Amino acid sequence: MAPTSLSARFQQSVTPASLRAYLAEFISTFFYVFAVVGSAMASRKLLPDAAADPSSLVIVAIANVFALSSAVYIAASASGGHVNPAVTFAMAVSGHVNVPTALFYWISQLLASVMACIFLKVTTVGQHVPTFAIAEEMTGFGASLLEGVMTFGLVYTVYAAADPRRSSLGAIGPLAVGLMAGANVLAAGPFSGGSMNPACAFGSAVIAGKFKNQAVYWVGPLIGASVAGLLYDNVVFPPQAPDSARRGVSEGVGV
Amino acid sequence: MAPTSLSARFQQSVTPASLRAYLAEFISTFFYVFAVVGSAMASRKLLPDAAADPSSLVIVAIANVFALSSAVYIAASASGGHVNPAVTFAMAVSGHVNVPTALFYWISQLLASVMACIFLKVTTVGQHVPTFAIAEEMTGFGASLLEGVMTFGLVYTVYAAADPRRSSLGAIGPLAVGLMAGANVLAAGPFSGGSMNPACAFGSAVIAGKFKNQAVYWVGPLIGASVAGLLYDNVVFPPQAPDSARRGVSEGVGV
Amino acid sequence: MAPTSLSARFQQSVTPASLRAYLAEFISTFFYVFAVVGSAMASRKLLPDAAADPSSLVIVAIANVFALSSAVYIAASASGGHVNPAVTFAMAVSGHVNVPTALFYWISQLLASVMACIFLKVTTVGQHVPTFAIAEEMTGFGASLLEGVMTFGLVYTVYAAADPRRSSLGAIGPLAVGLMAGANVLAAGPFSGGSMNPACAFGSAVIAGKFKNQAVYWVGPLIGASVAGLLYDNVVFPPQAPDSARRGVSEGVGV
Amino acid sequence: MAPTSLSARFQQSVTPASLRAYLAEFISTFFYVFAVVGSAMASRKLLPDAAADPSSLVIVAIANVFALSSAVYIAASASGGHVNPAVTFAMAVSGHVNVPTALFYWISQLLASVMACIFLKVTTVGQHVPTFAIAEEMTGFGASLLEGVMTFGLVYTVYAAADPRRSSLGAIGPLAVGLMAGANVLAAGPFSGGSMNPACAFGSAVIAGKFKNQAVYWVGPLIGASVAGLLYDNVVFPPQAPDSARRGVSEGVGV
Repeated sequence: MAPTSLSARFQQSVTPASLRAYLAEFISTFFYVFAVVGSAMASRKLLPDAAADPSSLVIVAIANVFALSSAVYIAASASGGHVNPAVTFAMAVSGHVNVPTALFYWISQLLASVMACIFLKVTTVGQHVPTFAIAEEMTGFGASLLEGVMTFGLVYTVYAAADPRRSSLGAIGPLAVGLMAGANVLAAGPFSGGSMNPACAFGSAVIAGKFKNQAVYWVGPLIGASVAGLLYDNVVFPPQAPDSARRGVSEGVGV
Repeated sequence: MAPTSLSARFQQSVTPASLRAYLAEFISTFFYVFAVVGSAMASRKLLPDAAADPSSLVIVAIANVFALSSAVYIAASASGGHVNPAVTFAMAVSGHVNVPTALFYWISQLLASVMACIFLKVTTVGQHVPTFAIAEEMTGFGASLLEGVMTFGLVYTVYAAADPRRSSLGAIGPLAVGLMAGANVLAAGPFSGGSMNPACAFGSAVIAGKFKNQAVYWVGPLIGASVAGLLYDNVVFPPQAPDSARRGVSEGVGV
Repeated sequence: MAPTSLSARFQQSVTPASLRAYLAEFISTFFYVFAVVGSAMASRKLLPDAAADPSSLVIVAIANVFALSSAVYIAASASGGHVNPAVTFAMAVSGHVNVPTALFYWISQLLASVMACIFLKVTTVGQHVPTFAIAEEMTGFGASLLEGVMTFGLVYTVYAAADPRRSSLGAIGPLAVGLMAGANVLAAGPFSGGSMNPACAFGSAVIAGKFKNQAVYWVGPLIGASVAGLLYDNVVFPPQAPDSARRGVSEGVGV
Repeated sequence: MAPTSLSARFQQSVTPASLRAYLAEFISTFFYVFAVVGSAMASRKLLPDAAADPSSLVIVAIANVFALSSAVYIAASASGGHVNPAVTFAMAVSGHVNVPTALFYWISQLLASVMACIFLKVTTVGQHVPTFAIAEEMTGFGASLLEGVMTFGLVYTVYAAADPRRSSLGAIGPLAVGLMAGANVLAAGPFSGGSMNPACAFGSAVIAGKFKNQAVYWVGPLIGASVAGLLYDNVVFPPQAPDSARRGVSEGVGV
């Protein structure tokens, strides 16, 4: 519960169960990035000017819903189903995950994203790998704010989905996470790209060799994620008040 | 259960659990309005004449499903997941929520909607915020009737989703609510806009400064919601007859 | 269990629980038909030649998924969530529902469908109500066969969703029913229309005054539904062999 | 548990429960192939050049989600819901299914696929049945690799969905399987077709009489599926370590 030394904490991070968690994160993040970046590539292959077509916004949004829901689902019981460095960052900030463990999660996620983009580039014989981009009229600060607020929504949903106090609603948790991501992409796709996931933005940037605006996809999301985690744990659903939380429910729902 | 004075009821409305419920309503309504209004803005950015394109109807409908399902999900155990002044109105009319509590729910929801629209306008650098509009050939009364009937369907689904007698089906309750909203938008989008949510119509009208037909999005939905709540509680699933309800099931389903 | 006279069976069909079931069927079928017929009208309003546009196939298919899932969900614990005369017919053929009860279900469903189409025509100020149609090159027999096989799939899914032996999978039953309907519409939309529901085809035909090929949407579906119900009950999941069914599972899934 | 002779194993494969499982596989695979191949035919009927339109990518991807989720759902408690020879192959390789049983599963699946394609061709009066194809610039090896990796993701999800240790998450298992398939189709549709299912590729090839690149849809998927099954069973969720698996969860999720 309260490891005193860094080496003790590090040892906790290399147990067989932890290694399995890193592998689960790798697999889930790989398939998430594969679908999100791949669906953008598929749109462009069908229609060179796809970025300006409403159908391609539908494609990227449902790719987020389908891929994130299933990626969170398959990793849920091994690693908690973060699939996103911003989620792991929030979990570390609110003390649910050790810092060394969080670092290994980040390495798995970033590596998986890079591998997914390399895999897409190789199997499609050098098709262009698109990166997240912000609309011409927007500032980097505005885009970062937009990405940060959307990541707040996503991470808040991840915390709600993982909350064991939600009894039967827990069953559709991974789906709720994917739906929140898809809803945000529909709103922000043509403005800031709708990444909410630094790993996804990083992997495509590495392969395309374009790091312009990369900070937008890290600063906002990491701050938004931390705020969401702290707010969920300490204000909206404080652990020390399970009774009042339940009372809140019965007062509110009422049927 | 039966507070005698207004001040006693008011005191019930400012407990820590209640304040958490208002915050949960604020967060959920913010993300719902962000996705619904934002997705309409995104469509228009991609295609200036998007309102007349079938793809943009798909975009707005799936934005409703994705955003409402996840918004109801994250607020469910804190506030009951109303995310809609019409739902709160119905709950107050059928006596599940105190009138002072309902007023605080309304304030949270309307404030969240206005904030979401301001946020969209600011981060997209002054992009036009679209308002709900009715088709040229329609009358205000017809549009209000249409919105009212659709809100009836939505609120009826909210009551069904919150009914603890539904055992295992309760798990997908938030999803059923979102799906009903999306189905209605697909049918009524080009006719009355498919709002079913006075907060959503109000927020976009405040920011755009256009209050034309605003009554359409309040009168119909509030009446439809109340009728749905009363019908569900008193006719279709009366609380005093859990046995006959169960018998109804076994007779009907039968397998 | 085995009522001896018709009048005794009729009396069973007018209990308060039964009347609630008919009302639940009316409400659910109304919203289902509203979304399916309304979404086709919405497509045509946006694009006069929408019937020949892939986006409108997406619209009608997701309208089926969204509307049927939520309609089955809200009626599930009151009437079993048939929402379709073909389902009720199968339930009567396999002996799960009395014939008088089934007739009242049919009346509720057909009335709801007609009312939904009238409501759409009135509120949209006389917009044309589209009917289901078969492709030029197809024969009525082929279309009826296609509708019959698709209805087989739909009713088989309804039986699976209502089967209490499915424990935790029962939670997503209404969703599975909607997804099967949507999948079939994607395949058959431009060929036979993808109705699978005589009530839906009947309501739109009454309002449009076009009964051409109406038999296609009754004969195939009613036969397909009956075969599905009998096959499910007697061959694939016979009630007298719950043990062997369970053994089948453990042999098959195995993990 | 450990049958010693081939004939004993064969006898296990012709019990009533097994025959029901084969029938369940036949029905589910029929409706899956019907929706996937049929939706491609529907796209082409609406728009002759549909293969190059983003809307048709949406159509094929949601056909996969809708049809695979519901097909897995209806077969789950009878046959385990494989609906795919690659899944059955993986189950046989990891020892969950006897080899004779697996062969009967394959026969049911391939027969169902051929029947679905014949049925589509006949009822649509000789409409062209499309086959899976790879993009011009791609090699057969690259396409096979792409199909193999995607099948890995799909089969890994099938194993996760069937894992009884997932308690409440088991309820949405069939949905997770469908969502993973849809996500992959969005990424790979215009490149390798996104089959992930040898039965589906085989059935359409038989009816169209085009076996070009058929090996692509068998070699990659069978290898990817086997690796997924072995990795899931032996590395990520080893059966002998249920405790450490649970510890992994509590460490990772943490809320």
